[in-house]
Amino acid sequence: MMRAPHIGLLEAGARGTIADVAGVTVGHCTLAQGAVQTGVTVVRPHGGDVYRSKVPAAACVINGFGKSIGLVQVEELGVLETPIALTNTFGVGTVANAQIRAAIAANPRIGREDPSVNPLVFECNDGYLNDMQGLAVDEAHYASALDACREDFGRGAVGAGRGMSCFELKGGIGSASRIARIGGHVHTTGALVLANFGRLAQLTIAGDAVGRTLHAARDACQKPEQGSIIMLLATDAPLDARQLRRLAARAAAGLARTGSVYGHGSGDIALAFTTAYTVAHDADFIALPPLVSDARLDPLFQAAADSVEQAILDALFNAETVAGRDGHRRLSLNDALKQRP
Amino acid sequence: MMRAPHIGLLEAGARGTIADVAGVTVGHCTLAQGAVQTGVTVVRPHGGDVYRSKVPAAACVINGFGKSIGLVQVEELGVLETPIALTNTFGVGTVANAQIRAAIAANPRIGREDPSVNPLVFECNDGYLNDMQGLAVDEAHYASALDACREDFGRGAVGAGRGMSCFELKGGIGSASRIARIGGHVHTTGALVLANFGRLAQLTIAGDAVGRTLHAARDACQKPEQGSIIMLLATDAPLDARQLRRLAARAAAGLARTGSVYGHGSGDIALAFTTAYTVAHDADFIALPPLVSDARLDPLFQAAADSVEQAILDALFNAETVAGRDGHRRLSLNDALKQRP
Amino acid sequence: MMRAPHIGLLEAGARGTIADVAGVTVGHCTLAQGAVQTGVTVVRPHGGDVYRSKVPAAACVINGFGKSIGLVQVEELGVLETPIALTNTFGVGTVANAQIRAAIAANPRIGREDPSVNPLVFECNDGYLNDMQGLAVDEAHYASALDACREDFGRGAVGAGRGMSCFELKGGIGSASRIARIGGHVHTTGALVLANFGRLAQLTIAGDAVGRTLHAARDACQKPEQGSIIMLLATDAPLDARQLRRLAARAAAGLARTGSVYGHGSGDIALAFTTAYTVAHDADFIALPPLVSDARLDPLFQAAADSVEQAILDALFNAETVAGRDGHRRLSLNDALKQRP
Amino acid sequence: MMRAPHIGLLEAGARGTIADVAGVTVGHCTLAQGAVQTGVTVVRPHGGDVYRSKVPAAACVINGFGKSIGLVQVEELGVLETPIALTNTFGVGTVANAQIRAAIAANPRIGREDPSVNPLVFECNDGYLNDMQGLAVDEAHYASALDACREDFGRGAVGAGRGMSCFELKGGIGSASRIARIGGHVHTTGALVLANFGRLAQLTIAGDAVGRTLHAARDACQKPEQGSIIMLLATDAPLDARQLRRLAARAAAGLARTGSVYGHGSGDIALAFTTAYTVAHDADFIALPPLVSDARLDPLFQAAADSVEQAILDALFNAETVAGRDGHRRLSLNDALKQRP
Repeated sequence: MMRAPHIGLLEAGARGTIADVAGVTVGHCTLAQGAVQTGVTVVRPHGGDVYRSKVPAAACVINGFGKSIGLVQVEELGVLETPIALTNTFGVGTVANAQIRAAIAANPRIGREDPSVNPLVFECNDGYLNDMQGLAVDEAHYASALDACREDFGRGAVGAGRGMSCFELKGGIGSASRIARIGGHVHTTGALVLANFGRLAQLTIAGDAVGRTLHAARDACQKPEQGSIIMLLATDAPLDARQLRRLAARAAAGLARTGSVYGHGSGDIALAFTTAYTVAHDADFIALPPLVSDARLDPLFQAAADSVEQAILDALFNAETVAGRDGHRRLSLNDALKQRP
Repeated sequence: MMRAPHIGLLEAGARGTIADVAGVTVGHCTLAQGAVQTGVTVVRPHGGDVYRSKVPAAACVINGFGKSIGLVQVEELGVLETPIALTNTFGVGTVANAQIRAAIAANPRIGREDPSVNPLVFECNDGYLNDMQGLAVDEAHYASALDACREDFGRGAVGAGRGMSCFELKGGIGSASRIARIGGHVHTTGALVLANFGRLAQLTIAGDAVGRTLHAARDACQKPEQGSIIMLLATDAPLDARQLRRLAARAAAGLARTGSVYGHGSGDIALAFTTAYTVAHDADFIALPPLVSDARLDPLFQAAADSVEQAILDALFNAETVAGRDGHRRLSLNDALKQRP
Repeated sequence: MMRAPHIGLLEAGARGTIADVAGVTVGHCTLAQGAVQTGVTVVRPHGGDVYRSKVPAAACVINGFGKSIGLVQVEELGVLETPIALTNTFGVGTVANAQIRAAIAANPRIGREDPSVNPLVFECNDGYLNDMQGLAVDEAHYASALDACREDFGRGAVGAGRGMSCFELKGGIGSASRIARIGGHVHTTGALVLANFGRLAQLTIAGDAVGRTLHAARDACQKPEQGSIIMLLATDAPLDARQLRRLAARAAAGLARTGSVYGHGSGDIALAFTTAYTVAHDADFIALPPLVSDARLDPLFQAAADSVEQAILDALFNAETVAGRDGHRRLSLNDALKQRP
Repeated sequence: MMRAPHIGLLEAGARGTIADVAGVTVGHCTLAQGAVQTGVTVVRPHGGDVYRSKVPAAACVINGFGKSIGLVQVEELGVLETPIALTNTFGVGTVANAQIRAAIAANPRIGREDPSVNPLVFECNDGYLNDMQGLAVDEAHYASALDACREDFGRGAVGAGRGMSCFELKGGIGSASRIARIGGHVHTTGALVLANFGRLAQLTIAGDAVGRTLHAARDACQKPEQGSIIMLLATDAPLDARQLRRLAARAAAGLARTGSVYGHGSGDIALAFTTAYTVAHDADFIALPPLVSDARLDPLFQAAADSVEQAILDALFNAETVAGRDGHRRLSLNDALKQRP
C-alpha cells in the first residue's frame, strides 16, 4: 500500500490524528452487509458529559448543500452540548433522536427543568454504495459508536465512512494533526474528515493532479457526484467561538488543494472546537483562560488547512475497495494507482 | 370570548389566515392525552409535489436557540423541497424521517439516481405541558397532519401548538393575512406562527402592555420561559430568495410589538416563501416571472410585520386553557382576562 | 415641551444617556447655515487611545441599505480601533480619512510597521433638509466633534442629527440608558441613536399609534422617506463579540416598537460594544474578565431594546423644528403635537 | 520572462482576461514616484451608467481583515450601482468621494429626489513599498482610471497594483478567463485580482511549492505580511445575487491553491457580477432572463476557481521589480526565479 505524502512544513503529532489533541476520542459503528454499506462515527471532544461541560465551537458552511442538524444553535451560542455524530444523509433524524435520549439518560432534567439539548449530526450521501432508502441506521448504532470512542481509531471505509466516495474513488474517514508554535506555546490542531466529494479529474495529491491519469478508476464510475465533506477541527489552543469560526474557515483551503471547487451538490461544512476550556451548564459567569490574540493565529490557520488536506489524503489512502448495492463498487486509491498504465 | 384587535392599517384577506395566499393549506395532528400534549402541524405551499416543484424560500434566524433541520440548504439554494413541518423539540428527527420517507414514496429515485431530499422541520419546546421525554411524536403523525391539510384549519391549542406556552399563557398556532397594493397589483401575504415565547410582564396587545396587569395568570406560572416562535410567511408576490429573506426579516418587527425582545432561550426563526412560481427539479434553466423591484417592497414589509403580530394574537385568543403533565396548566388569554380584578 | 414617556420596567441611569456607561463620551460638530444642515457626531468608548486599547464590539445589520465603512473588519475581529463616527451619507469617506489621520498622528507606526487602522463611520441620509451634494463635511469637523466629547452632550438636531428626519418629523440624536441586574451584579446599558427613518403614519409612542393623528405634520411632508437609523449600544457588562452581536440584535425590537418595519430604503444598523475590558494592540494573549453566561443575558436584552426605543423618543422630543435647503422644513414632534386638532 | 502555466482543463477566452466577458473594461491610474508607489484601478461592468443600469452582484468575505466600503448594501440589494474601484487602504475614503461626485454629475437627482448612491471601493495595503501615510491618492486619480477603461489593459505593477506585494514578491493586478459549457450554452467567466498576500514559503505555482526554494527572494524580505487580496469575478451567465454569492465563494479555492490559508491579516474578499442583465434604477418590476439552474453551476464554479488561480499567477508573472519608500524593494517573481541557485 502506498502512503500519503506529508503535507506542508508543520510536523504532525504523535498519532497523526485528531486524537493528538488531548482528550479527543473517536468511535465507529460500521454496517457492511450487502447493500447496506454505511455507519455512524462519533467524535467526543472530551471524556466528560458534554451537556454539563459544553465545548466552545463554531462552524463554517462552505457550501450549504447539506442536511445537518444542530448548526443554528452552535452559531448562536458558540458551544457544543453533545458529542459530534456523523452518518449518512437519511440517518440524521435517527441519530439526533439517539443523542437526545443519551443526553436525557445522563441528565434527567432535560426536557423538564432544563429546557432541551441541541443534537449535532452531520451527514454525507453514501447512496452510490449504500441502499439509503432502507434507512438502516438505528439509534443503537449511535450508542455503539459512542461506546467505541478511543484514541486509537480506524480510518478509511469505517463508521460513517463505510459507504462514502471521494473523487469517484473510495472515500471515508480520514484524520491528521499538526503542531504549531505560538510564542513559547506549543499547540496541537487535529482534523477528522468524512470525505465524500469530488470528480476524479480534479484529484490532486500534494500538488500533483494525479486524477487526470487514473483512467482505470474512471471506467469504474457510472454515477454523477453526490458529494459532501464534513471537516472537524480540534485544537488545544484557547480560542473563543468567533476565533473558532475563523479556524473552521481555513478548512476550505485544505479542501481546495485536493482539487475541490466546492461543487454545487457537495455539502462542505467545517466545524472547529477547542479543548482548552469548557463552559459549565449552570454557570452564571464564564471564566476563560487567556485567549490567543487574533494577530498570532496564523500558525493555527496553517495547521488547520494542512491537517484537513492531510486528513482527506488519509481517508483516500486508508479506504479499501468496497462493493455495495446493485453491483456498485468504489475502487480504493491504492487499487486505482496500481491499475494505472 | 374576546377577539383580537385588528393590527395596522392594511386589510386582512377573506379568511384572515395564511390560506388567503392561494394554494397554501395547513393540517394538524393533535396529541392530547394526559401528559402527552403535543402534535405536528404541516404547511403545504402548494397542492403539488414540492420536491418536483420546489418553492422559492428564505429564512431569517432572529435568535438561533433552536433545533430545526433543513435551514442550511434553504439558505444555500433558496428553495423548499418538502412541505414545512412544525413539532416539539424532540420530534424533529422523527418528523424529518417521515418527510424523507414520504418524499421517497412519491419519488423513488431519491437516494439513488437523485441524491437526496432536504427535510424541513421547525420546533418549539412544549416541555411545560407536554412530557417531551416520552418522544410521543411518531412518523404517522406527520402523515396524518399532511393528509389533513386544508384551507380552513384550526388555530390555538392544536397540532404542534397543542402544548405550547406564550407569555406564560396558553400559546400555539395562530394565523393572519394582509393585502398590500404595489402599483396596480394586489398581493396577499399571510403568516402562520407557532407561538411559544415570552414572559407575562412583556405581553403587549395592540400597543397596550396588558401583561403587567394579569396577576391571576401570573400566579399560575411556576416555570421559567422555555420559549421560541416559528414564523412562516407566505406571499403571492413574485420575489427571489434574496428578497424573501428580506421579507422574513420583517417578522422580527411584528414579534417585537407583542413584547418580545428575542429572549436568550427563545428560538425565534422566520421563513418566507412565495407561491408566485416554482422551480422544477430537473430544469436546466429557471424561468422567473418579473420580480417586484426592491424599491417597491415596503407594502409587503408592512404586511409581513402586521400579519405576524396579528397571528401571535390569533394564537393567544384562540388557544383554550390546557392542563398537561405533572399538574401543569396554562391559562388561556381569555380566561386570564376574565380573572383580572 | 412635552416629555417622552418612560419605556418599560427597568430604571434609567443617572443621566439617562449612553454616558451612564462609565467612560463613554459623546461630541458633536453641527453645521447649520442655510442649505447646509448636517454635522458629525463622535462616540468615544473610553478616554484612551482606541487603537492601542481596542474595544470589543459587534454589529447587527437589520436592513443593509447603508453606506457605512468599517463593519467588515468589526465582524471578523470583534473590536473597534477608532472612536465611532456618525455623519451624513456623503460624508463617510471624508470622516474615514479624518479617522485615519488622527490614528496616524497618535500612532506613527500605522501604515508602516503596523499595517493599518480600521475607520468606523456610520451614516444616515439627511438630504431632505441638507444640501448633500455640497459635501460640506470636512476632516476638521471630525476633529472638532472628537474634541467636544463629554459626558453631558446635546441631543436632537445636533451633530450628525442636525439634518435628519424621523417619521417625517424632525429626527436626530437621541440617547437613553437602563440598569439591569444579573445575579448580584448591576450593569448599565446605554443607547445612542441617529434617528432618520419612518413614515408618519407608523409613529408609535409607548404603544400609542399617535402618528395616524398628526395631520398637520403630514401636510408639511413633501418627500418620500430616505430613512435609516444607526443604533449604538454600550454596556459595562463583560461580554465577548459573539454576545455583543446578540445584544446588538435586540435593537431591532426597540426600533420596531416605535413603528418601524425596517423599510426597504432604511439602513438600520446596530452596533454594541462593552467597556468591561479592552484588547491591547500588541498582546500575544487576550485576558478576559469572567463573561456573563448567555443564559443570564435576558435582562441585558431587555435593557438594549428598551433603551433603543427610549433613545428614539429622546431624539424626537429633543429635536427642534429645522428649515433647510429649498424651503424644506421638518416640524418637531412637539410642534406637531401642538398643531393637532 | 517566464510565463505562467495554464491552470486546469478549461480553455481561456481570447484575451485571457476579465475583458473576455463582453462589455467589461478596466482602467488604471498609476502613481510611481519615489516613495509614492500606488494607484487606482477601475473595473467597469458595462459601458453604460451603472447607477441607472445596476449590475447584479454579490460578495463573499473569506477573511474580513479589510476596509472596503459598499459591501453592506451589495449584500442586501444584490446590485452594484457604481464601477468597482480598487486602491490602497488609505485611499478608500477619497475614491468613494470621487465615485459619489461622478454619480451626481451623471445623475443630478442623487442626494435630492433620489436618495443616494452606494460607492464600492476595495483596498489592499501597499505600505511596504508605498508611503501610505501621505494619502497620495486624490479624486482625480479615480476619474483618470475610469477614463482609461478599455478591453486591453495592463497587468502587474500598475494601477492599484503598483505598490502591492504577494508572497513577499512583487504582486499587483492579474487577470484571467475561462470558458465553460452548460448544456448547449457557452459562458465566459473572468477574474481580476489585486494580489497582495502570502508568505514566500507558501507560494505554489500549479501545484509546485516553488516558494520554499526561492532563498534569494527570501533574503530581500524584511517585513511581516500586510496582506490582502481582492478577487473580482465577471460572468456572462445569467445568475441572480444568491447564485453570484455562490460563484464568489469559489474564489477561495483558486486562492488556496496558490498557497494561501487566508492569513489573519489578509483581507480576502471576492465579488462576482453578471453581465447577462441589468436592473433599471426606476423599475417597478425586474424582468430576468432564464437563470442557470443551481444544479448546472459546477462548470462555472470550476471556471471561477481556475481563473482566480490563473489571475494570481498572472499578477506575479507580469509584475516587475519595484523599489519604493525607505529603500524597500520587491523582487519580481521572474527576477527571483532567475536568482534561484
